[in-house]
Amino acid sequence: MKKLINDVDSALSESLDGFAAAHADIVSLGEQRQFVRRRQLKPGKVALISGGGSGHEPLHAGFVGHGMLDAACPGQVFTSPTPDQMLAAAQSVDGGAGVLFIVKNYSGDMMNFEMAAELCRAEGSDVESVVVDDDVAVQDSLYTAGRRGVGATVLMEKIAGAAAEERRPLKEVADICREVNANARSMGMALTSCTVPAAGTPTFELGDDEIEMGVGIHGEPGRERMKMKQASEIVDMMATAIVDDLPFNKGDQVLAFVNGMGGTPLIELYVVFNELNKLLTGRGITISRNLIGSYITSLEMAGCSITLLKLSEDFTKLWDAPVNTAGLRWGV
Amino acid sequence: MKKLINDVDSALSESLDGFAAAHADIVSLGEQRQFVRRRQLKPGKVALISGGGSGHEPLHAGFVGHGMLDAACPGQVFTSPTPDQMLAAAQSVDGGAGVLFIVKNYSGDMMNFEMAAELCRAEGSDVESVVVDDDVAVQDSLYTAGRRGVGATVLMEKIAGAAAEERRPLKEVADICREVNANARSMGMALTSCTVPAAGTPTFELGDDEIEMGVGIHGEPGRERMKMKQASEIVDMMATAIVDDLPFNKGDQVLAFVNGMGGTPLIELYVVFNELNKLLTGRGITISRNLIGSYITSLEMAGCSITLLKLSEDFTKLWDAPVNTAGLRWGV
Repeated sequence: MKKLINDVDSALSESLDGFAAAHADIVSLGEQRQFVRRRQLKPGKVALISGGGSGHEPLHAGFVGHGMLDAACPGQVFTSPTPDQMLAAAQSVDGGAGVLFIVKNYSGDMMNFEMAAELCRAEGSDVESVVVDDDVAVQDSLYTAGRRGVGATVLMEKIAGAAAEERRPLKEVADICREVNANARSMGMALTSCTVPAAGTPTFELGDDEIEMGVGIHGEPGRERMKMKQASEIVDMMATAIVDDLPFNKGDQVLAFVNGMGGTPLIELYVVFNELNKLLTGRGITISRNLIGSYITSLEMAGCSITLLKLSEDFTKLWDAPVNTAGLRWGV
Repeated sequence: MKKLINDVDSALSESLDGFAAAHADIVSLGEQRQFVRRRQLKPGKVALISGGGSGHEPLHAGFVGHGMLDAACPGQVFTSPTPDQMLAAAQSVDGGAGVLFIVKNYSGDMMNFEMAAELCRAEGSDVESVVVDDDVAVQDSLYTAGRRGVGATVLMEKIAGAAAEERRPLKEVADICREVNANARSMGMALTSCTVPAAGTPTFELGDDEIEMGVGIHGEPGRERMKMKQASEIVDMMATAIVDDLPFNKGDQVLAFVNGMGGTPLIELYVVFNELNKLLTGRGITISRNLIGSYITSLEMAGCSITLLKLSEDFTKLWDAPVNTAGLRWGV
């Protein structure tokens, strides 16, 4: 295992210290690095909190800041954060307008965020939780009952974050999240595995001519292990599964998110976007917004995922609203 | 070789098509994909043009737009673009205030940009060329007489781009570039090689416990092949070489750019930044601006580079100025 770290046990802490130092104008670290929060809170705004295992950077800490999250709770690599992290984050950023937990559908995250919500309510906070489960690849998975939460998380954090900045109330921001989840679908694939530092060996093995179609963001098995294919065939498989699932229909306007898994360069992601654009155009679906890059990653895994979100006028306006985070920045 | 492409010969064209489609609000493609240019030109502004081999994305096409370049000429992967590409780009974006070529110091680029400058002058254009050669790793290299041009290119394109937006004249913008180059130093290292699509096999071989210290962005040999080390030792070697070369001194304000080579995840780049921050703080050097991410890459190579730029008041102001490109965006 070759990684730019000092040692396995301190890697996350040191990475968080580097992150907090680099973006000190936007964020600060909670005590014992339990959470990353905005340096400046907005009075009267619903507080958005997410979190999950580390190794998916920039998700989630990279999305803390104006227009997105108020706090993010990082667990160890691919391991859920604990309920006391979420409670501490909520106590730090709840300005009285309530707290919204954005939870990816993995058993550990679900359990711990639920416990945190109970703890917060016991302290008198108004708390709502929303679940992301946009991955169409498989029905149940290694760490998930039902569908896994993947790329839609990024879009949900941006869109709900903008709604919260407009001072929309907790119930409405939660409903927007559920609407994003209901209108988004994703699927991923891997060219290579990744290596969790604490494990020291690749999470799974792939042959030199093999890909994992429908892989999860922790390297969970997908639909099928298959021989390497051209980008056009790979995109066709993923996009068809996504489009048919919702379904997306002729005349729809979508946000197309082509995500790199961490080890795939931009030159390839744009080939994927080009194929996706042709395929959707052929079906009468218009990509009116896009996001291309590595935003929800799996350490150094090579591969990509596609997320499509059906856009309403409100979603589009909220997507376009200013954002100032380490990972996404525009309009400010 | 596993890559998300359809075939080796069409990969660059398809990637450029995807890029142009995704960012059609900012850029358009020249005929036969000779160059990527801004959709909207600014009258009376010096036209900034760069280019070079592809495979370093987002450099250079990802830096075309408000506040940075007016056009970028993409060569095949790790291969210089041709003089007629640069001439066509210059003819397309020169609004009469002159053209500035930003050239990384590689023999092919140097020769072709020089030829292009002559062709442009023959057509009556006012042309200046500036060279980037910030890599302290080795004196001469595989494709370079003198030092290689690496990370400072990104900073130069941003800072000179902002100066051009202020309608500063050609001579002054060129001098700013030379001043950026004179005050910037870089060094890189690789954990893995990369594979040029047309070659189909890794550019070089590295053992499971080896790194290449001082690697070039095309996989050129560095100072030393050595055993894998902790991040703190790796950063110490690179930063010491950089700091001692200029030299950077106690009391200096710097922009610290921690760049991913393409296959290295953010979680590791922030560990590197954390080490760099500690080391510079110990020497009395203050990081007052930073950039962390994969901005000048070598396909899927794992590794990183560090660039330091001594900041003047003018450089800081120009760095902070609004930018709207696919690769860097803030303030708009």
